[in-house]
Amino acid sequence: MRVLGVDPGLTRCGVGVVEGAAGRRLTMVGVGVVRTPADAETAERLVLIERGIEQWLDEHRPEYVAVERVFSQHNVRTVMGTAQASAVAMLCAARRGLPVALHTPSEVKAAVTGSGRADKAQVGSMVTRLLRLDAPPKPADAADALALAICHIWRAPAANRLQQIAAAHRSTVPARLPKGTR
Amino acid sequence: MRVLGVDPGLTRCGVGVVEGAAGRRLTMVGVGVVRTPADAETAERLVLIERGIEQWLDEHRPEYVAVERVFSQHNVRTVMGTAQASAVAMLCAARRGLPVALHTPSEVKAAVTGSGRADKAQVGSMVTRLLRLDAPPKPADAADALALAICHIWRAPAANRLQQIAAAHRSTVPARLPKGTR
Repeated sequence: MRVLGVDPGLTRCGVGVVEGAAGRRLTMVGVGVVRTPADAETAERLVLIERGIEQWLDEHRPEYVAVERVFSQHNVRTVMGTAQASAVAMLCAARRGLPVALHTPSEVKAAVTGSGRADKAQVGSMVTRLLRLDAPPKPADAADALALAICHIWRAPAANRLQQIAAAHRSTVPARLPKGTR
Repeated sequence: MRVLGVDPGLTRCGVGVVEGAAGRRLTMVGVGVVRTPADAETAERLVLIERGIEQWLDEHRPEYVAVERVFSQHNVRTVMGTAQASAVAMLCAARRGLPVALHTPSEVKAAVTGSGRADKAQVGSMVTRLLRLDAPPKPADAADALALAICHIWRAPAANRLQQIAAAHRSTVPARLPKGTR
């Protein structure tokens, strides 16, 4: 499977394409950053991000898009921008009919390093090793995007199994339980 | 001027088009709500919002788009959805080259009712009176979208004057002050 990982941000949107399967060798197809000028209007920046993501989708034709799930615990201003950039990434993917998956930062760290609390350097170094690169991709947003793609490839089999179980469950359990069974 | 107001939300996105000018009679051109199913994936919901906003832009050809500025003080889950929906609205407008303005909820309430702390009912009733409608538009998101458009029409002259002053200032002040002048 070929996955585009997106680490969303208004100033720097990390993008990385990885090909592989769970338990198989992983290959980096491409990595980069979509940047927008900090002094531009938010609406203009979103247009630039859309254009950038579209180019990556056109060029690398991923089958899945994995986007970092945004939380609003952190800095208020940053979080709004991140949520908006992630919306554009999700929109570009879904508009093409590509499945979009969201992974939390700790899911990504845990998948790639074994610890949900790993720091940027540890993630960068594991990404470098897993993809057999000469050096950690820079900036960190680019490495994070690759980590997201790897996380998705490795989690996909489990996620698909869960979806199958849930679907099977839905088709065997009656929508409304008979009275008195609760 | 013809303005599309957007009260962003994932479940209900209020949209309202108002035509008029500051100090002149206002006319409602259209009002409605773009809805998306709560059980759909976020990415799919963003695609539906994009489709809905595009239809409103195609049909009513506004010259300006006014979107409610999102704050993250409130409920965490809601705010993320609101930020994402507002990103799609801004993107649709900017992609067409339409100027996008953001107004805070209190700016809108103050513009329409005279008080930044007015409640939904007061906003609805003032919108009804200003646009000479038979009844307040429902749901509240639709009335809020019209209020946003009205706010933009009334604030635009002041905003434009400020922009002109800023532009004039930029063109007369040298980009770099000579040494020793600071």
